[in-house]
Formats: sequence, C-alpha cells, structure tokens
Amino acid sequence: MGYTKRVRYKNHKRHINAGARPGSIIIPHDALPSKITIYSFNQDDLQVSKGEDMQTITRQIAKCTDHTHWIRVNGLGDARLMEDIGTFLSINQLVLEDIVNTHQRPKFDEYDGYVFGTSRIIYFNNETELVNCQFSGIVKDNIIISFEESYVDYFEAIIVRLKAGKGNIRTAGPGYIFYTLIDTILDNYFVLLSQIGDLIDQIEDKLYQSPDKSIMFDAQQLKRTLIIVRRACWPERDKINDMIRSESPEITKETKLFLRDAYDHCIQAMDMVESYKEVTSSIIDLYLSMVSNRMNEIMKVLTIISAIFIPLTFIAGVYGMNFSREDTHGHVIKDNMPELYVQHGYVYALICMLAIAVIQIFIFWKKGWFSKL
Amino acid sequence: MGYTKRVRYKNHKRHINAGARPGSIIIPHDALPSKITIYSFNQDDLQVSKGEDMQTITRQIAKCTDHTHWIRVNGLGDARLMEDIGTFLSINQLVLEDIVNTHQRPKFDEYDGYVFGTSRIIYFNNETELVNCQFSGIVKDNIIISFEESYVDYFEAIIVRLKAGKGNIRTAGPGYIFYTLIDTILDNYFVLLSQIGDLIDQIEDKLYQSPDKSIMFDAQQLKRTLIIVRRACWPERDKINDMIRSESPEITKETKLFLRDAYDHCIQAMDMVESYKEVTSSIIDLYLSMVSNRMNEIMKVLTIISAIFIPLTFIAGVYGMNFSREDTHGHVIKDNMPELYVQHGYVYALICMLAIAVIQIFIFWKKGWFSKL
Amino acid sequence: MGYTKRVRYKNHKRHINAGARPGSIIIPHDALPSKITIYSFNQDDLQVSKGEDMQTITRQIAKCTDHTHWIRVNGLGDARLMEDIGTFLSINQLVLEDIVNTHQRPKFDEYDGYVFGTSRIIYFNNETELVNCQFSGIVKDNIIISFEESYVDYFEAIIVRLKAGKGNIRTAGPGYIFYTLIDTILDNYFVLLSQIGDLIDQIEDKLYQSPDKSIMFDAQQLKRTLIIVRRACWPERDKINDMIRSESPEITKETKLFLRDAYDHCIQAMDMVESYKEVTSSIIDLYLSMVSNRMNEIMKVLTIISAIFIPLTFIAGVYGMNFSREDTHGHVIKDNMPELYVQHGYVYALICMLAIAVIQIFIFWKKGWFSKL
Amino acid sequence: MGYTKRVRYKNHKRHINAGARPGSIIIPHDALPSKITIYSFNQDDLQVSKGEDMQTITRQIAKCTDHTHWIRVNGLGDARLMEDIGTFLSINQLVLEDIVNTHQRPKFDEYDGYVFGTSRIIYFNNETELVNCQFSGIVKDNIIISFEESYVDYFEAIIVRLKAGKGNIRTAGPGYIFYTLIDTILDNYFVLLSQIGDLIDQIEDKLYQSPDKSIMFDAQQLKRTLIIVRRACWPERDKINDMIRSESPEITKETKLFLRDAYDHCIQAMDMVESYKEVTSSIIDLYLSMVSNRMNEIMKVLTIISAIFIPLTFIAGVYGMNFSREDTHGHVIKDNMPELYVQHGYVYALICMLAIAVIQIFIFWKKGWFSKL
Amino acid sequence: MGYTKRVRYKNHKRHINAGARPGSIIIPHDALPSKITIYSFNQDDLQVSKGEDMQTITRQIAKCTDHTHWIRVNGLGDARLMEDIGTFLSINQLVLEDIVNTHQRPKFDEYDGYVFGTSRIIYFNNETELVNCQFSGIVKDNIIISFEESYVDYFEAIIVRLKAGKGNIRTAGPGYIFYTLIDTILDNYFVLLSQIGDLIDQIEDKLYQSPDKSIMFDAQQLKRTLIIVRRACWPERDKINDMIRSESPEITKETKLFLRDAYDHCIQAMDMVESYKEVTSSIIDLYLSMVSNRMNEIMKVLTIISAIFIPLTFIAGVYGMNFSREDTHGHVIKDNMPELYVQHGYVYALICMLAIAVIQIFIFWKKGWFSKL
Repeated sequence: MGYTKRVRYKNHKRHINAGARPGSIIIPHDALPSKITIYSFNQDDLQVSKGEDMQTITRQIAKCTDHTHWIRVNGLGDARLMEDIGTFLSINQLVLEDIVNTHQRPKFDEYDGYVFGTSRIIYFNNETELVNCQFSGIVKDNIIISFEESYVDYFEAIIVRLKAGKGNIRTAGPGYIFYTLIDTILDNYFVLLSQIGDLIDQIEDKLYQSPDKSIMFDAQQLKRTLIIVRRACWPERDKINDMIRSESPEITKETKLFLRDAYDHCIQAMDMVESYKEVTSSIIDLYLSMVSNRMNEIMKVLTIISAIFIPLTFIAGVYGMNFSREDTHGHVIKDNMPELYVQHGYVYALICMLAIAVIQIFIFWKKGWFSKL
Repeated sequence: MGYTKRVRYKNHKRHINAGARPGSIIIPHDALPSKITIYSFNQDDLQVSKGEDMQTITRQIAKCTDHTHWIRVNGLGDARLMEDIGTFLSINQLVLEDIVNTHQRPKFDEYDGYVFGTSRIIYFNNETELVNCQFSGIVKDNIIISFEESYVDYFEAIIVRLKAGKGNIRTAGPGYIFYTLIDTILDNYFVLLSQIGDLIDQIEDKLYQSPDKSIMFDAQQLKRTLIIVRRACWPERDKINDMIRSESPEITKETKLFLRDAYDHCIQAMDMVESYKEVTSSIIDLYLSMVSNRMNEIMKVLTIISAIFIPLTFIAGVYGMNFSREDTHGHVIKDNMPELYVQHGYVYALICMLAIAVIQIFIFWKKGWFSKL
Repeated sequence: MGYTKRVRYKNHKRHINAGARPGSIIIPHDALPSKITIYSFNQDDLQVSKGEDMQTITRQIAKCTDHTHWIRVNGLGDARLMEDIGTFLSINQLVLEDIVNTHQRPKFDEYDGYVFGTSRIIYFNNETELVNCQFSGIVKDNIIISFEESYVDYFEAIIVRLKAGKGNIRTAGPGYIFYTLIDTILDNYFVLLSQIGDLIDQIEDKLYQSPDKSIMFDAQQLKRTLIIVRRACWPERDKINDMIRSESPEITKETKLFLRDAYDHCIQAMDMVESYKEVTSSIIDLYLSMVSNRMNEIMKVLTIISAIFIPLTFIAGVYGMNFSREDTHGHVIKDNMPELYVQHGYVYALICMLAIAVIQIFIFWKKGWFSKL
Repeated sequence: MGYTKRVRYKNHKRHINAGARPGSIIIPHDALPSKITIYSFNQDDLQVSKGEDMQTITRQIAKCTDHTHWIRVNGLGDARLMEDIGTFLSINQLVLEDIVNTHQRPKFDEYDGYVFGTSRIIYFNNETELVNCQFSGIVKDNIIISFEESYVDYFEAIIVRLKAGKGNIRTAGPGYIFYTLIDTILDNYFVLLSQIGDLIDQIEDKLYQSPDKSIMFDAQQLKRTLIIVRRACWPERDKINDMIRSESPEITKETKLFLRDAYDHCIQAMDMVESYKEVTSSIIDLYLSMVSNRMNEIMKVLTIISAIFIPLTFIAGVYGMNFSREDTHGHVIKDNMPELYVQHGYVYALICMLAIAVIQIFIFWKKGWFSKL
Repeated sequence: MGYTKRVRYKNHKRHINAGARPGSIIIPHDALPSKITIYSFNQDDLQVSKGEDMQTITRQIAKCTDHTHWIRVNGLGDARLMEDIGTFLSINQLVLEDIVNTHQRPKFDEYDGYVFGTSRIIYFNNETELVNCQFSGIVKDNIIISFEESYVDYFEAIIVRLKAGKGNIRTAGPGYIFYTLIDTILDNYFVLLSQIGDLIDQIEDKLYQSPDKSIMFDAQQLKRTLIIVRRACWPERDKINDMIRSESPEITKETKLFLRDAYDHCIQAMDMVESYKEVTSSIIDLYLSMVSNRMNEIMKVLTIISAIFIPLTFIAGVYGMNFSREDTHGHVIKDNMPELYVQHGYVYALICMLAIAVIQIFIFWKKGWFSKL
C-alpha cells in the first residue's frame, strides 16, 4: 500500500532446546565461521596475528609471555574452537553456553580466576535494518578474549589507538581493554540515538509540513527501536555497576575510575531513550489530533453545505410537483399549487429560498461553527 | 460473526471452601486418578517401576537404599495417596493442601528436613488452548517427589538424559533433579514465547497486508496470554532466588551455580514477555490508527461528492419547477422563470453548474483535502 | 434509559467531627443495636450464652475461668457497651474509636497486654449490592472479642467446627480463633472473586454474542468493585505480615505457621484482582473497538449508496428541467435540452447512469473499501 | 458558553527573587496584616490576650511563667514581627523565610532547642473556590507559635476544648497542642473529601439521568482538586512519620501515640484520594463512551433513512425527466420513457419503490444494525 | 498552515566520537571563545579582573593570596585554556571532558583535594526559544572555577551581593559561592516554571473562551518543555543530596544547612513540574472532549435536517413524476397518479409532509437528541 519501510530486526529468534543439559554448546545453523585475530602488545611492541583455530592462540601466547593478549573472535560458528578455548583457559561450560547462545542480557559474572561479561551491539545496518548482536568477553591473567557474532569492523578506533600506542592503552592491562570495548559499544549507542534523533526530527518536520499516514507507522517503528535500545541499556547499567563493585584483580582501581564515567554515559543514554520515547508519543498524539481536526473540518463543510441546500432542494421539489389545475372531469382545482400562477411567484420562491439559506448561515455562525475549534 | 478463535484457559476456577480447616485435602471433582512412576538410579543403575498406590513407593525405596529416587506422580485425584505420602515422609498438612489445590503461585518453602516448591507449567495445547497447570516437588534425603496435574509427557528430555546417564544427572542428588525439572519448565516458557512471537509476526503481517477486525481480537488474546505467562514468571524469579539463598542441604552448592543460570533465564523470559506486550500494544495502536485513517478517507470522498452535487441538484431542481407563464386568468407572468425561454438558456445553466463544480474542487484542493493526511 | 443495574456501595460515608478529642466514641446514627454471643470452650466443653449488655460478659467469664472465650459483638450501636468493654479489659480509647468508626483500613496493632486488628468484610448482598463492612478483634489473655457491623451469619462454618471440636480449634487459644476469623474473611474474598469472575465471563459472552452498550457500564462497575477489593487486600497483606512478625504472646508460633498460609492466600487474591482488572480493561478496549468497527461499516454503506446515487439523481434532475423549446415569441430554441428529442435519448441516459454507477463501484472496490478492515 | 463553574485556586503564584540571600524575609504584597492571639493555660487557668506586635507576646510570657503559651499569628504581612519573633526565640532565618513564603510542602524539621513544621490548610471557600494556604508552627520550651495566612476561624473546636479544659489538652504541653492543630487540619481533609464525594455523586447522578457536556468539565476540575489534596497529603504522611521518629523533647511519648493515629488517618485520606481519582476517571470514561454511543445511534438513523430514501428519490427523479415522445420533427420516439404510458405504470413504480425499501430494511436488520451495540 | 510557534531547543545535539580515548577534550565547532572574569574578595576587599588566557588567572591568584577567588569562565571554546586550568589545579582529564562536553546530567563528584559539580541552566530566550545549557564548577582550596556555555549575565544578583558585601557571602568560602550559584540556578527554575504557569493559564483561558486547534500544539510543546525541566531537576536533587552527605572540607557544615534548604526547593520544583504536567494533560483531554462534543453537535444538526427533509423531498419527487393520464393509444390510464387530479390534493400533500416532519421531530425529541449530551 505504499507505507514506509518497516524496521526489521535481525536475529530475533532464540534457539531453544528444552530439557537439554545445562552448559550444552549448541551452534545456531546460521552462525558465521569463526575468525581469530590476536593483538599482543606491551609498552613497546604490538604484534597482530590471524588464524582460525586453537593453534593460532596457543602459539602466540607461548611466544609472547610478557605481553597483554587481546584475542578477538569474530563469528561463533565453530563449536570445536569454543570447547578448546574453554579447556585451555578452564572456563565453565555455562559461560561457553552463554557465549554461543546470543540472546543474553548484558551481565557481568565473576568466576574463580577470571571474569565474564556480555553486552549488546546495536546499530543501523545501512540505515534501515536494526542489528542487535551480542558481544562477550573473558578476562583472565594477561588475556582478554572477545567474541562477536559478525565480522563488522566495530572496534576500528581502538585498534588505531593500540597502534598509536599513546596513553595507557597498551600498559593498563586486559581489564582496561575490556572497559575500552564496552565504552566503545556505549559510545555507539549515542551514534544510534543521534540517528534516531534525526529520524524524529524528520518525522516532526513532516508532521508540521506535509503530514500523511506514514507518520504513524514511522513513529511506531521508532518506538520499537527505542524499546530495544532500552532493553540493552538497563542491564548494561547494572553490569557496569557490578564491575565497579567487583573485587576481582582483573578490574583494576584505575579502570574502575573510567567505569564510573561509563556508568554516567549509560544513565545519559537511558535518559535520552526515555525522553525520545516521550517525544515520539507526543508526535503520535499530535498526529492523531491533526487527523481528528481534519475530520472535524470536513464534517463541518459537509454539514453546512448539506444543511443549506437540502431544504432549498425540497422547496424546488414541491414546486416541481405536477398537481393538476383540473380534475379528471375538467373542473378547475383552485387550491392545487396556486403559487405557480401568481404574479412574481417565481421571484418570491427564490427570495424565500435565499432567506432560508441566510437564516441558516446566521444560525451556524452564531453557534460558532465557522470558528476554528 | 466469524471472529477468530478465542484462546480459552483451562482450569481457571479455584475450588473454595470458606471457613474450612486449614490443611484440608479437598480433591477437585475433575482431578485425574494418580499414576506413579519411580526412577531409582545411581552412577551405574537405573530402575523404573510403575504403580498406583503407596505400596509401589515403599517397596521400591526399601529395595534400593543407596539410590536416588525420583517419584513422579501424574494426576492428583487420589486423596488417600496424598495422605499416605504425607505420613510416610512426615510432610506438613499445609504442603499437601498446596499440592492438590492447583492454583498456587510459584514458591519455595523450607521445612524441617525437606524443601517444597511449586511452578506453573504453561503450554499451548494443539496451538489454541492455553493450559496452565501446576507442578510441585518435595525434596527429602535421597528422594524427590514431583506432582503434575496431567499425564502429558512433559519431562521426556530429562528421562532420556537419565537413561543415557551422561553428565552428573545421576550423581548430583535429588536437589539437582528438582533444578532440572524447574529448568525444563523454564525452557518451555521460551518455546511458548517463541510460539507467541510467531503469532505476533502473523498478526503483524496481516496488519501490513490485509488488515481486518480480527486483528484487534487476536491482539487482545495475545495480551491476555502474556499476562498469564508474566504471572507465572514473576514469582518464579523470587522462588529461584529463594532457592539460591536457601541453606537447606537439599540444595547443594553445585546446584546453586546452575540455579543462577536459571535465574538469568527467568529474567530473560520476563524481558521477552514485557517487550512482546509492548509490541502487541503498538500493533493495536497501529490498527486503530489505520481504521481511523480509513474512516477519514471514506468521509473525504463522501464529502467531496456530496458537496459538489448537492448545489448542482438544487439548480436542476429550480429549473424543474412548474411556475406557469400564465396566471389563472390567462395573463402572461413575465418574471416566472424567464431563463427557461432564453436562447442558449440550457447551455448557460450547464456551464453555470460546471463552474460551481470546478470552483468547489479548487477550494477543496486548496484546503489540502486531496493530500493524504 | 434501561441501563443495567448500578452496583451500589453500602456505608461509603465516614462520619467526621473535625477537631474532636482523639479517642471520642461517636456512634453513627444508623448503627445497629449490639447483640452479644459468647462461646466459652475448652477441650471438652462448649457453652454458648447470649445477651445485650456488659453483665452477660462478666458473668460468663467469671463462671468459666479455664475456658477460652470468644465474645462476638454484632452491631456497634451501643456506646455504653463499648466503654464498658474498654474499662473491663483496659483498652485504649483510640482502639475503641477505631472499632466504632467503621472506615479503618485493615491493620494490626500491638498494645500492652493485648493486640488489636481490623479487616474488611466484603460480599455481594443478593448479588447486586456490594457490602463493605468492618470486622475488628481484640485478643487479650484467654479472651477474643470480635466486632461486626451487621447481624449477618458470616462465621457459620467456624461455629460448626467449634461445635464439632475436631482439630485444634478448641485448644489452640484465642489467637488461633482470631486467625480463623481472618482466614474465613480471606476465603470469602475468593468467593467474591469467583462471583466477579462469573460476571466477567457473562460480560465476555455478551461481548462475543450480542454486544450492547450495557457492557461498558457493567465493565466499569466491575472495575470499581475490584478497586474496593484491592483496597481491602493490600493493607490486609501488610497486616498479616505484621502479625507474623509480632512478638506478642497472643500470636503463638503455631498460629504464625498458619498465618504464613493466609499471607500466601492474600497475595493470590491480589494477583487475581490485578488480572481481573486487566481482563476487564481488555474487555472495554475490545468493546470500544467493536463500536468503532460498527461505525466504520455503517459509514461505508452510507458512503457507497450516497456516492453512487447522488450523481445519478443529479442527471435525472437535469433532464427534469423545463427549459422550453420555444422562447416567449414562439421562436424555436434549438439548443435547449436537445437530448430530450433524440431517438433512444432515454435509453442512452439510463445507460449513462448505469455506467457511472459501475465505474464508481469499481473505484471503491479498487480502493479496498469492500474488504473488511 | 454556559459551561459550569471553573474551580479557581487561590494563592497559586509563588513570589520569586532569584539570587536573593537565603533566609530573606520577603512579604508578598497581598499578605494580610498580622493579628496575634495568645492562649496561656495550665491545669486551672486559661488567659486569652490579643494584640498586634511583639510587646503583646513578651508581656504575656513574662506574666505567666508556669503556663503553656499558644501564640497564634493570623496574617503574615508584618515583616518586623517575624524578625522580632525570630530574635526573641532565636529562630533560624531559613525557618522565618519558610513561614512567610507560603508555598512550602508539609515538612518537619528539628533544630537546636525547637522544632518546626508546616502543613497545608485546604478547604472550599463557599463551595466553589478551593483555598490552599499554609499553616506553620514552632514548638520551643513551653511555647507553641502557629502561623496562618488568613483570619478564618479554622481551629474553633480546639479553642472550645481548651476552654472546657477536659482531657489532657491543657496539661499535655505545647507539642500536644501542635499535634491537635495538625490533627484538626487532617480531619478537615476528610470534610473536604466528603464534599468531593458529594460532588462525585452529583456528577454520577447527572451522568445516569441527564448527561450533558458539563460532566467532562466538572470531572476534570474534580481531578485537579484531588491532585492538590494529594500533593498536601503525601508529604504530610512523611512529616508525621518524621515527628514520630523525632527525639526532640518537644514531642513527648504520649503525643507520639496520638501521632500514630494521625498517621493512619493520613494514609486513609490518601487512600480516599486515590480511589476518588479512579472513580472520576471511570466517570469520564463512561461519559465518553456514552457520547460515542450517542453518535453511533445518530449515525445509524441517518444512514438508514438516507440509504432507504436516496434510491427511491432517484427513481422518482427518473420518472420526472422530460424525455419527449416526439422528436423535433414530430416523429414518435417509442423508447423514450414508455413506462409512463403503460397501464398501472404508476402503481408498478410505487410497488417497485416499496420493494426496494423493504429489501434494504431487511438487509440492515440482517446485519444487526437495529440491535443496540 | 498558521500553527503557533514551535518551541525549539538549542544545543540538543551531542558530539560523539565513538572509541575515542576517555578524557579527550573535543571542543564542539560552535562553542564560544572563552572569557575569564575573576572576583577576588575577602571581608574588606573585592577585586575584579578580566582576561582571556591562563596568565590572567595565575597573576591574580599570585597577587591576592588571602582572598577567595571566583574564576568565572564564559564560553568553552578554548581547548588550550581548559588544559592549562587542568594542569594548574591538577584536575582529572575526565572532569575536563565533562566540562566541555555540555550534555552532562547534574552530578556532584568528589576527587582528591577538590570537588566537581554540574547543573543545567534552563530559561526562555525572548520567550520562545528554550535554552538548556550547562553550568559546571570546581571548588579547590580558596578557589572556585565556574564554567558557563554562554555570555548571558545569569549571576547578576550574586555579583551585586558580592559588591554590597553584606551577609556572609564574602567570608563563607568558595563552597558557599558554589552553593549560591546552584541556588540561583534553582531559583531561576521557579522563574521558568512561573512563565510556564502563565502559558498554561493563557492556554486554559483560550480553551474556555475561543478554543482552536493551536491548543493541542501549544499543550504538547509545554509538555515537552516540562520534560526538559524534569530531566534537569531529578538528578539535581540527587546531586544536592550528594553534596549534603559529602565529607569534603570544601563543603562546610554551614553551607550544608543552606543546601538542605536548596534540597527542599528542588523537591518543590519537581512537585510543580509534575502537577503542571497533570494540568497540561487535563487541558488536552478537555480540548479533545470539546472537539468531540462539537462533532457530536454538528452531526446531530445534519442528521435532523437530513432525516426530516429526505422523506419530504422523496414525496415531492413522486408527485413530480410524469406518469401520463393517457397511454400511447390515447386511452385514459385511471390509476396513473390520480392524486394529482383530486380536489385539495396539493393541500393534502403538504399536510402529509408536515405531519411526517412533526412525527420525526417528536421521535427525535423523545430519544433525547435535543438535550445536550
């Protein structure tokens, strides 16, 4: 029917396996094959190595013992790799299940010797499709492993900063890298919210300039997008709070200072989501009120035109009747429509019609129907 | 009237016996007769025995003293059996009342020497009827007794796992079996939510492709189903939390680790329920807005057609009047409808009508009534 | 206008005496005269004595010193009796004020040597009038005094149990009797809720089978009834909780176990109230949507009939005009309505009209106006 | 336009002086001049003295050293007096600012050696104007000073009780007088709520008997009045709670017992406000539904009359056309309106019209349009 | 289309730099160049010096070592200056980022040796444009630095008080100055709320006197303005609370007393915002109800006029039919419209029409359509 685009949500189905053993690693059939990139770095050095299996990881970690290693896994399609990583770092089966079952709420859990956290990566894919995929990370000793569902180059800016080597990014440890990844995800919420803000401005401009029924659809789509962002933001806040209060050595005191900043950003994002939701609702209310005003105006015109002409047409109808001056026997019927045979009868009839019209218009004007309600 | 199916809820009446002694075991008249299945197992062995009375239980427990026993009772129609079980395991009367009075909210209570919990089993029976029945379980020493209202084979997957004997299912004790049962119930909430998600998709597709008034009914039914799921989920969360914080020896530390996972699932399910509710509401809003748009469009067409033709019909009516050229005495009445006797009078009249129509169309176009609001 | 019955609320006015001394016993003018029934019982014996003044009480208590006494006062119209009871048991003036001022929220207060609690008794009086009256009780030593506003035989079941003497009802002390009374009131909430559930079912059946405007009224009345039940239930929950946490010797440990059960029932009742409210709201939404659908359908029919016939009637009107073939001087006016004098002119006109009708129907069909939105 | 009275709110503007020194005593220009009444009393004696300046106070206090003094200030227009009182009793500047700036929320603050509290006095001034003014009080040693904005005799009942001297009103100290004042204010909330309840009953009766559009206005005014009462009640509750938990010697243990009673009253008042709000909302919903039902009924009548007569009028129009039996050359045109020259043609036409009307009525009846939706 | 002014929000875009190093000072391109004003004062002396770079500050501080310095920075366009200030006072990078990134929520943070806080300055710029800009302040030793986005003379009143030197403003230290600034911002919320209150009064007067569709737009704009104020107020309250509970020496005990007062003001402002929101909503509801009433009235008039005249016009149409008295063979057709040839036929027809009209009016009056719903 020509309605505007419908925001579609990728990945909204969860695979379910009721009654399965907890901790089962079940790879969804549409998961991408895993690609591994390892960034090993210290104050002076940065090595990047790529691969697709466990060997890549073990070799690199064995080679650089005094480096911090950021093992970045894109694509979660390799059950074998997951299990190898689990064995190599002694990770709990439940954690591995959470990594491949990509519908977790953001959370932060502490385990013996390592910490684990998940976030939601949300962005507009070519401006129309909302992608909502999972990021998870494990920090253990000098290693951080991050898992992403897609191959999208989401952390480009961090790699640039790693290569530049300025600030404390190379020296502050894997916990700081973990914070940096989460912070980038949060920053991108603001990019997303800014795009949503632009969409709201567009809808509002349309509302004021050339309102049509796509406004309702677009506003509802926006509302739904905001619900998704809010669902990611709320638990994110709790997660960051958990990290701040964590006593794991992986989250250093310095990192916690930065996390407090991320916490503020998270609240700011939630704030924006809430007020965008309210603005969207008020756009819908305004639109519905405009529709109803339009109806009102149309009704008024119809009423006034109908109400004026219907009685006049009736009078014309009366004088269009064929009552005869003579009955069937030829006698004159005096009181059959004598008006028709009166001098100026037609003029009187027209004047009478005009008078009725004027009186009606006057009454409607008195009732205030010509004012704009 | 051809409306779509109305989701019916089984078992929504509670039997009431105001003023009765607390702890009375009153079996509803439609309760099914009880069937007992006992799974006795240890690391190496699994025995299954079936029966219908207390003897089955006592004999089996006496036979295998070093086994874990899962006594599964399907159908709660046997008051005698309930009382026998109560006596055999020294269970409080109030607990037995809760088991047969199948309208409990999910809860977890600790008693001297045993723990007791209830959950709601909710599923679509052949896709249209929502079944909401009660599961309850008692864990004492090496025994877990589970009570289900129906004979439906709800825990098939667990029995398969018991038979396979992999993992710790045979060795982790009755508390772990209790967790497994609850976890399966929770997993099935996701199955249910996934079916609801499909229904939402269907309704939405209908909304975009061929909207009709069944949408309103279906959306309201969905909403009500979601209310039922939410009513089961909220207290379930508290219950699992109570289990995690419990200090009963029946809930081992290892089981608590898994319960934390179940807790996360529970919150996820609630999350999905909430966002499905919001989506359903937005579908209803969209539908109502489409209905009102349709009304608007229809009104516009009526108005424009009426407003154009009513004045024209009036003019035709005027020239259809029979004002006579002669009065009753045969004198010519000059000003009675002289237009009718003028050269090109008809053509002028037609032109006049056309002009009025054009002017009106122009005015309506100016007012923007042809644009789509 | 034939609308359905309006649920009326008895006793909704509070008597006010601003600035009066706190603790004043002011009897409302419509209070019933007090009637006293005393049940004195122990393991073996049950005596029932009736009367109307303080003497009845003092005599009976003096007579049976080792019995538990349940003094039941129906009707609060006797200020003298209230003051006598207050003096006899050394009850605080504020408590006495609360007993006769029958608009208290449910609450539980502990005083030196006695405890005091109030509840709301709510029921449908002959199915249409909702009665909301006050129950209050004082437990001191071996005495429980209960106060009811009306003479209705609300606690019949308890008296039957007292007479039967089974269970611990005769031996568990006055605190247990107090619990039993509260539990009966709670159980009756379920009776009430079940009646409300039946009313909801009736309204819903009406909605699906023969919807009329009484639905709106009935649903609103139901909503209001549910508000009243909720107002009684919420503080009841707090009250029971206060009783459980009370350290008064009047509430024994055994009684507390039963109170936990009552607490669960109270939450269940609130749960039902909330979900009945949601169901009622969804019924109202559905009804309003049906009304609007009906409007829509009616509008469509009007539009289609009007839009088809208005142009046709106009054409008929044109050919009903009396433009003359001759002017006043007898000259032929060739272009005055030549169509009327053409062979098959009438047939052509009818065909033309038919064509216009068909085209319009085709356009409306194209616009989808015949589909059911 | 003849709408009903609009409840107007006195004193809804706050005077603002942004950036002014905190603690500035700025008297609003419309404040009334101050009048002082001092009630000095002990067990046996009650003295009343009036005046307008500080001297009245100092003289009376010096005279009766063993009395409790209730200094009542009506009208806050005398900045000098305020400052004198502040100096005399060593009151903080911020407290004095709160007294004259009469837009405080109810609160209770403890200072060194004295306590300070404010409340809102709300009543209907001659039934139409809602007055919302401030009461504040300071309790220090044996003195209580109360400040009221107006001269209205609001505490008449207390003065009567003081003069009677019964109960503990003369002996329980200034804190008890403070409680009594607050309690009277609270009791008057019930008077106000009872008036509101009467208004609701009136509106509801109107709704059921002769609904007109004033209902909407009146209900909205009521809602707004309830918002004001709620805004006074909520912080009042916190205030009384603060007083109960206060450890100042000014609030004696005995007074706290009475405050608990006042606390209950406050919650009861809030309860009534909330349920009145819900009732008001449901009245508005019912009214809107009635309006829409009315519309629906009117539409139906219009549709049925129009739909029946429009086709009939068309047929009449057709047979009113002037197609000629002869063309301009005098040849007979056989197929021009042959129906007009057929035996019984007129009767057939009428029968045909009747048939069409009957068929339409049957169709509409089939569609259920005559049933009351 | 002539709608009323649309409140525009300055500065609503946040600059985003996802993945950037935390603590980066990125100046928005539209930031104003920085201007510095230093107020150095003690009990006896007040020096004012202006400048644009760091030297101004260092010179003045070196000159007056026993003064309190209020360094006021207007315009945040100078990244260099920010960094210099950061270095000079050893301020954390994250704090500097918060100062230039002007979309912070109000907050208060304590650091080693200094405290930092932000607030929102909100006002109507020439009554139509809502300006929402950031204020931030750092208090360290005897220095307070305040940062404002614009050059607007917002703190005029404080400078006047500083120059007058009365009260404790010159001696109470930089923490007190910080409080004074925040208090001025809060006081200005009341100025803003008073302007909003005036706007509400205007809209309401319009609603009662000459309602038109701008009401809906204006009310929605107001609602949005109130959302912005609320978003500033809520965290402000938390901030002031944090300041009161702070143990930093910068916030003295005396200042905390004043902060408690500011806290009360903040709650009062929130209270006003909430009740203004409710009033705005009720205005919108009333307006929509008036629109619907208007529709209703118009519909009624149309219905009554149409329903009365349509049947009459039909009758006139019938007697305007041209059924012939003679068939084509010249035979008389007796039953073709005999009414036309009857004595008084015309009069009878008119009487018949009148009767129909009267009956209809009577029916409509009976149905209560002339009453005002």
